[in-house]
Amino acid sequence: METNHMDCRASIGVFDSGVGGLTVAREIMRNLPKEHIVYFGDTARVPYGSKSKVTIVRYARQIIHFLRTQDVKAIVIACNTASALALDEVEKELDIPIIGVIRPGARVAVSATRNRRIGVIGTESTINSHMYQKLIYEEDPAITVYEKACPLFCPLVEEGWLKDSVTKEVARRYLDELLEKDIDSLILGCTHYPLLRSLIREIVGEKITLVNPAYETAKELGELLKREGLENPDEPADPPATEPYRFFVSDMAEKFGHFANSILPYDIETIQKINIEEY
Amino acid sequence: METNHMDCRASIGVFDSGVGGLTVAREIMRNLPKEHIVYFGDTARVPYGSKSKVTIVRYARQIIHFLRTQDVKAIVIACNTASALALDEVEKELDIPIIGVIRPGARVAVSATRNRRIGVIGTESTINSHMYQKLIYEEDPAITVYEKACPLFCPLVEEGWLKDSVTKEVARRYLDELLEKDIDSLILGCTHYPLLRSLIREIVGEKITLVNPAYETAKELGELLKREGLENPDEPADPPATEPYRFFVSDMAEKFGHFANSILPYDIETIQKINIEEY
Repeated sequence: METNHMDCRASIGVFDSGVGGLTVAREIMRNLPKEHIVYFGDTARVPYGSKSKVTIVRYARQIIHFLRTQDVKAIVIACNTASALALDEVEKELDIPIIGVIRPGARVAVSATRNRRIGVIGTESTINSHMYQKLIYEEDPAITVYEKACPLFCPLVEEGWLKDSVTKEVARRYLDELLEKDIDSLILGCTHYPLLRSLIREIVGEKITLVNPAYETAKELGELLKREGLENPDEPADPPATEPYRFFVSDMAEKFGHFANSILPYDIETIQKINIEEY
Repeated sequence: METNHMDCRASIGVFDSGVGGLTVAREIMRNLPKEHIVYFGDTARVPYGSKSKVTIVRYARQIIHFLRTQDVKAIVIACNTASALALDEVEKELDIPIIGVIRPGARVAVSATRNRRIGVIGTESTINSHMYQKLIYEEDPAITVYEKACPLFCPLVEEGWLKDSVTKEVARRYLDELLEKDIDSLILGCTHYPLLRSLIREIVGEKITLVNPAYETAKELGELLKREGLENPDEPADPPATEPYRFFVSDMAEKFGHFANSILPYDIETIQKINIEEY
């Protein structure tokens, strides 16, 4: 891996199928305040969770190609589905570091569980890939992993029904079979799901640890930058000399902006729309 | 429009964002049994209902470009969102006839209503386009149109919860405000919604006419072919000499096949996957 000539003042590229990855970007902002971010949300082709590996790998390659035009020093796949389906393929092709959200999420669940019974919820494609299961077994083969796809959670979050009785009934159906397995930890394996955290908490009770891979991903990114000598040495200027966070989408920039401003600790001023199919 | 040299034995191109347009293809099969069909479902970029006009027009152009490589004599946009957002743009660029599902649906609703109060349900993008409203006013300006986006209906249909209590509660919330307006006709303005017909019927009661644009679209296609001298003169062979119905998707061919076989009156044998971004 050639990183000698990489400018440590370059940005971190972060991408997702849409808005969900902003929960990961937010953790990077909080935990690595010196780092600049270029975020891309693939709002023209969202959702990824019901699509195939071949398609998601092609989308990830196009997005990485775009992010490289923005001079990034490392890339975070802030989408569980793309991490599960595309990370293995695209990291072979890259000469800068790239991480996903699955391994960090798996690690924190492994350290959280006491009874070695972990539940994972995610999109259909993430669950069908069994990537959480695989990475958890690599850490500790004595753990049993129970997986459940929850395809209605993303549309319910996007409809804004975060604390609704309908959402609660849907959650109860999805989660009941995991609860019967006596899990003590539950990985929120889609970036939309932390927005349902309080509703999920009501259903699973206080004894189950809810694992949000976003925080752990930011931490792993920090360790990676340190190890590779890629940390940005500059203190964040106040006010900043240049915009430290830049946002790109493939469609619906305005709607993205509304959602982003409800998640991020500050208001985004500009969001650029690009044609991702050209990359 | 040059159609003189067009081969009337060529196929009808039918496209949709995914599987929903099969309900339109089914009506064409039933009502125009001599016609051959090339169907394309854009399963790699589904759903269209939350995306912008610019994006949907670009997708429609690519798909039409692909369908032309399959030698089609006419095109049906079997997707309400693409009909609402892209038909006006793409029909200017074409030298073969193209129709959508909105105008046929609007016409049948206009002839069905007695009290001149029509409800329309559809995706966010279809409803925001106000295309049903516009075309109904063109037919009869004395009609009042009440519109309501139902973004959770498609994911609920795709989850297979067609007669579920959750779906019924969601439908009640979406439909209540239309029922308060004393509508006597309701357009099912998304190709997924006819699959919820019996559940919607339970909520709206027996007095409201449910309008499914699929049947009327097949009828309008038949009239168009006749007018343009494009009807296929051959009787359907039994067994057919060549496959009369051909299916293409941009992703998830196997899943598409399962769904198709549950909707169509016969089992599909082959579904080809293509990279639509190359067109």
